[in-house]
Amino acid sequence: MHGGHIIEGKAVTPGAKTFDAIAPATGQPLGPAFAEGGAAEADAALRAAAAAFEPYRALPPADRARFLRRIATEIEALGGTLIERTMHETALPEGRLQGERGRTTGQLRMFADLLEDGSWVGARIDRADPSRSPLPKPDLRRSAVPLGPVVVFGASNFPYAFSTAGGDTASALAAGCPVVVKAHPAHPGTGELVAIAIAAAAAAEGVPAGVFAHLQGSSHELGRALVTHDLTAAVGFTGSLRAGRALFDAAAQRPRPIPVYAEMGSVNPVFVLPGALAERAEAIAEGLVASATLGVGQFCTNPGLVITVDGEHTQRFLDAAARAAAAVQPATMLYPGVCHAFREGVERFASVQGVDVVGRSSTDADPASNDAGAWVLSTDAETFRSNRQLADEVFGPSTLIVRARDVDELEALVHELDGQLTVSVHATTADLAAHPGLVRAAERIAGRIVFGAFPTGVEVTHAMQHGGPYPATTDARSTSVGTAAIERFVRPVTYQDAPDAVLPPELRDDNPLGIWRLVDGRLTRDALA
Amino acid sequence: MHGGHIIEGKAVTPGAKTFDAIAPATGQPLGPAFAEGGAAEADAALRAAAAAFEPYRALPPADRARFLRRIATEIEALGGTLIERTMHETALPEGRLQGERGRTTGQLRMFADLLEDGSWVGARIDRADPSRSPLPKPDLRRSAVPLGPVVVFGASNFPYAFSTAGGDTASALAAGCPVVVKAHPAHPGTGELVAIAIAAAAAAEGVPAGVFAHLQGSSHELGRALVTHDLTAAVGFTGSLRAGRALFDAAAQRPRPIPVYAEMGSVNPVFVLPGALAERAEAIAEGLVASATLGVGQFCTNPGLVITVDGEHTQRFLDAAARAAAAVQPATMLYPGVCHAFREGVERFASVQGVDVVGRSSTDADPASNDAGAWVLSTDAETFRSNRQLADEVFGPSTLIVRARDVDELEALVHELDGQLTVSVHATTADLAAHPGLVRAAERIAGRIVFGAFPTGVEVTHAMQHGGPYPATTDARSTSVGTAAIERFVRPVTYQDAPDAVLPPELRDDNPLGIWRLVDGRLTRDALA
Repeated sequence: MHGGHIIEGKAVTPGAKTFDAIAPATGQPLGPAFAEGGAAEADAALRAAAAAFEPYRALPPADRARFLRRIATEIEALGGTLIERTMHETALPEGRLQGERGRTTGQLRMFADLLEDGSWVGARIDRADPSRSPLPKPDLRRSAVPLGPVVVFGASNFPYAFSTAGGDTASALAAGCPVVVKAHPAHPGTGELVAIAIAAAAAAEGVPAGVFAHLQGSSHELGRALVTHDLTAAVGFTGSLRAGRALFDAAAQRPRPIPVYAEMGSVNPVFVLPGALAERAEAIAEGLVASATLGVGQFCTNPGLVITVDGEHTQRFLDAAARAAAAVQPATMLYPGVCHAFREGVERFASVQGVDVVGRSSTDADPASNDAGAWVLSTDAETFRSNRQLADEVFGPSTLIVRARDVDELEALVHELDGQLTVSVHATTADLAAHPGLVRAAERIAGRIVFGAFPTGVEVTHAMQHGGPYPATTDARSTSVGTAAIERFVRPVTYQDAPDAVLPPELRDDNPLGIWRLVDGRLTRDALA
Repeated sequence: MHGGHIIEGKAVTPGAKTFDAIAPATGQPLGPAFAEGGAAEADAALRAAAAAFEPYRALPPADRARFLRRIATEIEALGGTLIERTMHETALPEGRLQGERGRTTGQLRMFADLLEDGSWVGARIDRADPSRSPLPKPDLRRSAVPLGPVVVFGASNFPYAFSTAGGDTASALAAGCPVVVKAHPAHPGTGELVAIAIAAAAAAEGVPAGVFAHLQGSSHELGRALVTHDLTAAVGFTGSLRAGRALFDAAAQRPRPIPVYAEMGSVNPVFVLPGALAERAEAIAEGLVASATLGVGQFCTNPGLVITVDGEHTQRFLDAAARAAAAVQPATMLYPGVCHAFREGVERFASVQGVDVVGRSSTDADPASNDAGAWVLSTDAETFRSNRQLADEVFGPSTLIVRARDVDELEALVHELDGQLTVSVHATTADLAAHPGLVRAAERIAGRIVFGAFPTGVEVTHAMQHGGPYPATTDARSTSVGTAAIERFVRPVTYQDAPDAVLPPELRDDNPLGIWRLVDGRLTRDALA
């Protein structure tokens, strides 16, 4: 490990300005010293990316697929070295990191499969009609082209799956876009190891070295330089609302605006209806606390808000949640700042008149090891409504249970909530039939609606939507998880009356890729007659 | 005609502040006085739209289709009254307006067909696997929901097809979004007549009156109020770069950002390669001048820039263009301001050292009737490169022919151009084979690439892409023309383990709509087994 950047496949060793990786469990620095990148490194990486764009996008999809698969095997080849480094940098447990690594390599292979399948480009062909009057109808063929160099910000809470070789990197590379990653400063060593694996995969597969760069830095300067650079074509970010909005605002002021896919705050409300409460108050409470404290509550889909209805079974629910919380062992959070913000956040909530602390971990959290324990808070709808801050995200293992008078008030609260990644609904068939507006209201605010379960598991599949209205993300029209994520980094181009020889393979008469195409409005895999 | 707004199906008659419609052919006002809308009217229209959103989006697709078809027949029922008013307001000839009206009603019916077909929602289903280890796999189903109230700005140059009942209105209504139109102040009477037709269609089909509003105004205040209103979910705009960027900037500063689809400047470069020049210099020149002066050059796809190569056939090309320009009859432009800007623009170009006026209409343009005649200008690549303003759009019947030394210089110029709606390529098979980089370079800057023809015709079909990189539009990922335009106004939602009864019809087990769905990664119209 050299602590430097990787630009065009080469290590750029740190200069005079460096920063340390800190082990959150001890507060102690972990070597080596990491480079502080700035505008110069951003410029070098983006120039290399821009130069690599044309040859990279010209590669056949099968070659890009091979590159993605090779990245996966190179990451696997890092073995325990990678896992161990990440454990030190993030305090995440070994099993979780092994799982996340599998998810990350699985994502890379999923996009490789998608490229080989080929139909993702959404090819459309409208055939010519030379005899149309008054004017002949031209031949039109539409497919997708990659946007250009993509800047990806590593996320602190997913050191693999949303960082250096994470979802945005995988989907952008699959789409044909070079990627410049800004590593998260909380796990720079993890980032470097994965970046070396990607560079090795590029070298092994003959992919231009400029398609990938990895920059280190702990300042805002580097991020801002990347987002405002003229050669940047799109941005992927996962992190706080404050940081995401700052990048969005910087990008909006560019002479040439670009898409910014920032995934930010979400409290992922859980609605518990009276029938479900009567049937299984304890099971829902236990599931809730397990979901809210999973991974020390450090998931973007963490259920931080529960809305239920006051009634004869509500106390059962609160009691069971309190018992479950008491049994939760405090654990180290990702980095000191996030742990401090969590403590400050739950204490701020608890100090609001009308908010009760229903339950907490029975073991005290040790501030020296940046520990956080479970917190379950509760309040009524009126207090919730009159204290807007209670709807804000507190990142960590806490949840706030709001008691509405009845389902009508619960439904009214849904309409007052901001955009969310997810909404979860615990309801019986009778609950849902009696309140048809609830799911419709959930559709208005969320990207995913979960029934009878909790939102923390995010499947990596075709039908996943991981995204939601602002402030959950800055672009609810796209997903950061699943095969549809590739659509973030492409745009359509139509070819009119083009000779077959200049068309991309997916639009040629003989359909050499054998993909699905919309021909004169009809889906078919046939060649043109 | 009352000159007022239409909010929730009701006429709001003008107050003290009004503006006049001006007949560009005479410079004289046309009655009645039109209302100056502002923040209060924007608020009233958007509140009504927000209230209508839920019932409107809940309508079955067949009901929305019937509404769209009814709008088309109501517009047709206006007959000559509409055409005549528009002729006075825009100076566009009767035949053109009849054609544009047909295009507009055709668009409405196309989206009705799309709704009845139903597959446009892009339904995806990943079935559950309860036996998966370590965790069961949930059932995931993804479809599209409408964004909410959409603000549409009427365009001066398409009083029907991109105005009150134009493409954005049709696709937003099809998607399930209410629409608030800001009429273009150059044709407010046309807007009012069409708006009355839409309101009548809503009343006749039992659609909530709030789904459509029509606001009049000649100030920036109304547009800004609409774009920054909290209830606005998306914006569609066609117009100048300056106005579009101002709206984009205003929207970017909202507490809750929204998509802004602004279609703005484009010079639609035409590349003429040596082989094509040798084969058909005269035919290309004649086609070019016809396209550049069609509709007095007032198309967003007007070919304002030609790049060719200096050689033995170049003079033939310039001479033929000069002859064609001389024969063009000057005609009245859309409104006095646009005519003034055209004259100022061509004179500014002509005054650049190294730019020659190759040809002009032999008849003088009459400033009293806001006439503009054809202008063909020419320069060399060096002059073009050193005067960046020569790449700017001059809206009107002019074109600038740039002579490169060779095809390599031509190709280098392509890489220096801004984003464009279209690029056109006139080339022989041998030209294309010798310069494979040219089409790839065109893909980098354009939304549509036209071969052997000119860009002014824009087909309304499945495979059309009308959009392109900035500054052609603010969002190159979408189209404003063709069936894919409906994607502008929706976002995906995923339902996890949802009971069949709460799912939208397109995601139910039995596939009641009979649509294409991606089930476990495979396209099928089958019901789930």
